[in-house]
Amino acid sequence: MGNKPHTPAKSTRDELSIAEHVRGVLDQNRRILSQTITKIESQLPRHQEQSDQIVQALLPHRKESIRIAVSGIPGAGKSTLIEQLGLLALQKDHRVAVLAIDPTSTISRGSIMGDKTRMEQLAQSGKAFIRPSPTAGSLGGVARKTRETISICEAAGYDLILIETVGVGQSEISARSMTDMFLLVLIPGTGDELQGIKRGVMEITDLVIINKADGTNRSCALETQQKYQNVLHFLTPVSRGWLQKVETCSALLNQRIDIIWENIQQFQKTTRQNGFFQQRRSLQAYQWFLDIVEQHLKEAFYSRPPIQRELQLLKEEILQNKLFPTLAARRILDLFFKK
Amino acid sequence: MGNKPHTPAKSTRDELSIAEHVRGVLDQNRRILSQTITKIESQLPRHQEQSDQIVQALLPHRKESIRIAVSGIPGAGKSTLIEQLGLLALQKDHRVAVLAIDPTSTISRGSIMGDKTRMEQLAQSGKAFIRPSPTAGSLGGVARKTRETISICEAAGYDLILIETVGVGQSEISARSMTDMFLLVLIPGTGDELQGIKRGVMEITDLVIINKADGTNRSCALETQQKYQNVLHFLTPVSRGWLQKVETCSALLNQRIDIIWENIQQFQKTTRQNGFFQQRRSLQAYQWFLDIVEQHLKEAFYSRPPIQRELQLLKEEILQNKLFPTLAARRILDLFFKK
Repeated sequence: MGNKPHTPAKSTRDELSIAEHVRGVLDQNRRILSQTITKIESQLPRHQEQSDQIVQALLPHRKESIRIAVSGIPGAGKSTLIEQLGLLALQKDHRVAVLAIDPTSTISRGSIMGDKTRMEQLAQSGKAFIRPSPTAGSLGGVARKTRETISICEAAGYDLILIETVGVGQSEISARSMTDMFLLVLIPGTGDELQGIKRGVMEITDLVIINKADGTNRSCALETQQKYQNVLHFLTPVSRGWLQKVETCSALLNQRIDIIWENIQQFQKTTRQNGFFQQRRSLQAYQWFLDIVEQHLKEAFYSRPPIQRELQLLKEEILQNKLFPTLAARRILDLFFKK
Repeated sequence: MGNKPHTPAKSTRDELSIAEHVRGVLDQNRRILSQTITKIESQLPRHQEQSDQIVQALLPHRKESIRIAVSGIPGAGKSTLIEQLGLLALQKDHRVAVLAIDPTSTISRGSIMGDKTRMEQLAQSGKAFIRPSPTAGSLGGVARKTRETISICEAAGYDLILIETVGVGQSEISARSMTDMFLLVLIPGTGDELQGIKRGVMEITDLVIINKADGTNRSCALETQQKYQNVLHFLTPVSRGWLQKVETCSALLNQRIDIIWENIQQFQKTTRQNGFFQQRRSLQAYQWFLDIVEQHLKEAFYSRPPIQRELQLLKEEILQNKLFPTLAARRILDLFFKK
C-alpha cells in the first residue's frame, strides 16, 4: 500500500521503525512520543498502517488513567485552569498529558490578549506532556487521532489526561465520547447565550466550574453557581452514582483548585467503585469501533467509479426535482448490490 | 418480496391498488389520502414497494407549497397557533395539511389540561387535512415517512404544510431538513432552560413567536421579544436574504395571527425571489437521498450472517479491553470486502 515500493517496511534515516516507536514511548521519551503522535496524525496510508501496529503493540502497556474533558468558550480560562490542575497533579506524583480535540483550542492559539506564558510552568516539567492541537482533517478525523493519542500517552505512563475542547459544533460530543469525566468551565454572571452553552452540553457535564471567581466577581460567581446548581437538579446524572455539581474557583489566583482536584478524586472513586468507570470505557471503545466501521463503509461505497458515475446522474435528477430521493436511493443501492 | 406469494401485486378486497391510491390522492379524497399515508407508514416490505411507486407517480402532480415547521415545548401553544394560522390560510383560499414529526406531538396527545377541542374548527373544514402523528419506528423512521407524506399531501393539492414538532432530541433538526421555514414558539418570561431552547435551535429558526402575549402577559412578552431579538442579532441568517425576527401573538385570543401570516408571506416572497427557496429544497432532497443510501449500506452490512458472527466475537474482545477498536474495525472490514 506504500507509495515508496522500495522501502516498504524498513526504517529510513528519517523515520523510526515500529519497534523504535514502541520502545521510545515505553521509555517515556517525549521526543519519540511526539514523533509517534505525528505519525498517528499523518494521512499517508503507510503511516496509518504503522500507527495501527504501534498502537496495538502499546495497548497492553497502558497505565491506569483518568481522562478528563475541559470544555468552555474561549476566554473562560480553560488553559489556565488546566495548567493549575496539572501543576497540582504533578505535586501529587501524577504524570500529566494535555491534548486538544480541535484546531481552534487555546493550547495552540494563545489567548486573545497575546499572552505568551500559556502553560509555561507546566511545560517546564519533565513529567508533563503538552501536545498542541492537530491541524489537519475534519473534526471527526481529529477526534479519531485524539483517541489513539490518548492511548499512547497512557502507554508512556501519563495517568492524568486532560483534553481541551472549545464549544464548537460536535466537539463536546466527541470529547465526551473519549473521556471519563467532563468539566464545563464558565465565567460569572454572563448569560447562557454568551457562555455558548447548548442545553445538550449541560446534560453531558459532570462538574461545572465557575472560573474567575475572585475579587469583585466573587458574589456574582456564587449567584451563577446557584443558578446552574438549580439547572443541574433537573438533569439526569450522566455518570451513574455521581451527582453533577457546580464549584467556583480562580485559576489565575490558584484559588480553590484543590477543591476541583478533590471533586475529580471523588468522582473517580465513586464511579470506579460502582463499576461505571470501566463500563463506560468499554462502551466507548465499542462505539468507536462502530463509528470507524461505518465511516469506512461509506468511503468504500462512494469511492467506486460506477457508483461515482451513477451518483452524478442521480444528483442532477434530484436537484432538478425529476426523481424522488427514495427512488434514486433504491437505484444506486441496486447497482452496488448487483441486483 | 411479498409475504403473500399468491396475491403479489393485485389489489384485494381490503387493499387499494397503486392506481386507486394515485387516483384517490389526485382526486383529493381525504379517506384515500389517509389510507395512502398508512401504507407509507407500514413496515411491510410489500407496502414499502407500493409506496415508492405511489410516491413516484404522484411526484409530478405536487402543487407548489410552503412547508413550515412549528417547534416549541409542550404548553407553548403550538396546536392553537397552528389552528389559527390554518383557519386564516383557509380564508385566503389555501388548503392546509397539518402533520406531526414525532410521536409525542400534541396533535395526538391533547393538552395536559385535557382539552378536547384541539384543532376542532380546522378539522371541520373540507380544505384541511390533519394527520395524527405516526406511532411506529424510531425518530429517523418517522421523519422519513413524514417526508413522503408531505409529498403526497402536496399532490393532493395542499399548499400550506404545517409540521408540528416537539423539542426533543433530533426532531428539530429533522423538521428543519424537510421544511422551508422554521417557527419557534415560546412563551413570555420563562428562562431559556425551561423553554427547552437548545442553542442550535435558535440558529435554525426563521421566526421566533412569543405566544400568549395577552392580558397581564403583554409587557413581559415585549421584554422577552426584545431579549430574543438581541440574541438573533448575533446569529447568521439561516435562510439567505431573510433576517430572523421575533413577533408576539396570542393564538388563544386570535390576536396578531395576521402579523405571523404576513411574515410567512414576506419570507416566501424574499426567498423565492432570490432563489434560495428552490435551492434549499433541492439540497434537502439530495441530502435525504444520501441519508437513505447510508442507512441502507449499514443495514446491508450488519444483516450478513458472517458479519454478525464476527461482530459478536470482536465486541467481546473490545469490551474486555483485549483488542483496540481500530484493529477490530480493520478486521471486520477485511472480512466484508474479502481481502
